[in-house]
Amino acid sequence: MISVSDRLEQQLDFIVELDKLKHVLRYTHLLNEHRRENSAEHSWHLAMLAIVLTEYANEPVDLLRVLKMLLIHDIVEIDAGDTFLFDADGNQDKAVREMRAAARIFGLLPADQRDEFHALWREFEARTTPDARFASALDRFMPLLHNYLSDGQASWRPNHITETQVMAFNHILREGAEPLGAYAQALVEDSVTQGFLAAEDGTSF
Amino acid sequence: MISVSDRLEQQLDFIVELDKLKHVLRYTHLLNEHRRENSAEHSWHLAMLAIVLTEYANEPVDLLRVLKMLLIHDIVEIDAGDTFLFDADGNQDKAVREMRAAARIFGLLPADQRDEFHALWREFEARTTPDARFASALDRFMPLLHNYLSDGQASWRPNHITETQVMAFNHILREGAEPLGAYAQALVEDSVTQGFLAAEDGTSF
Repeated sequence: MISVSDRLEQQLDFIVELDKLKHVLRYTHLLNEHRRENSAEHSWHLAMLAIVLTEYANEPVDLLRVLKMLLIHDIVEIDAGDTFLFDADGNQDKAVREMRAAARIFGLLPADQRDEFHALWREFEARTTPDARFASALDRFMPLLHNYLSDGQASWRPNHITETQVMAFNHILREGAEPLGAYAQALVEDSVTQGFLAAEDGTSF
Repeated sequence: MISVSDRLEQQLDFIVELDKLKHVLRYTHLLNEHRRENSAEHSWHLAMLAIVLTEYANEPVDLLRVLKMLLIHDIVEIDAGDTFLFDADGNQDKAVREMRAAARIFGLLPADQRDEFHALWREFEARTTPDARFASALDRFMPLLHNYLSDGQASWRPNHITETQVMAFNHILREGAEPLGAYAQALVEDSVTQGFLAAEDGTSF
């Protein structure tokens, strides 16, 4: 076989493992095709959002760190799967499943990179820094835009999601990027007016 | 409809347009599934390579610029389609088709961002800077690794690609990241030894 340094071998093992994120299907559908989005292409799209929308971050951000967070934030789903935002049961043990996944997958890397990735992923999840708050806001913004542009077909209608459920996460947008939070709220209100998002829990479509 | 600033509206138009890159299919198959890779998930994977393998760049690179280049380098394919590396005919008018695509798609953005994206894309294509040379090396490395790990099934075997054809691009790897170029050459030689890459033009498998 091919002889390489232990370090490069570890890095390549990790890179090959990443191919699996292309098979993790999200609960959101693409805009122009009737198939579900996978977590790898979603991560790319979010990274593009970060580049294009940096100016709307509430606080100054380090774009390189934001990009790293967004590019790695879903890697744990290779083991833990995608958990639908509005799935109460699935979200109960999500943290434990994802921590185990992070340990295994980031653990493929050399120790310095393993630790960096772990720290970035935890920071993203905790939203305790401006970079993480902005990254998280983008992560919440995109499915909302997908739903608005597909008249709720991307995930709201098929799962009977309500305005109350969607707006419960609006603070995450506003904490990271106030203008995007305000815009998202307008989209939600217009979705209710147009009749493809139920106004209250239990309201049928 | 929702009222936003002209600038945000242009940025959102661009972001929505990007969804189409998830439908552009490359000539390379995924490792663990019999489907072709799309250019959005490929771009994500390359960005991850840049983060993990920065240390192998021949010259010091600005990782943020490298990431931007890799994240945007395939966006022109939304209009121009993916051109197989070894398709001589397709590569003849590739530059013209891609320039038109860049003008239309980047042209959706506000002028400052349009110009930045144009410049980054041209820099990537021209490989005239350390950042672009490293980014291009990664772009050439990944399909090679995919082919090696799939015994040539990712794209070499189905398209009767030869060692000569593959090695014709090895200089791009070596110019950007010498250790990856050397590793790639070892993979190619082992592929020939193992019999899933033809040694010369015209050799059958």
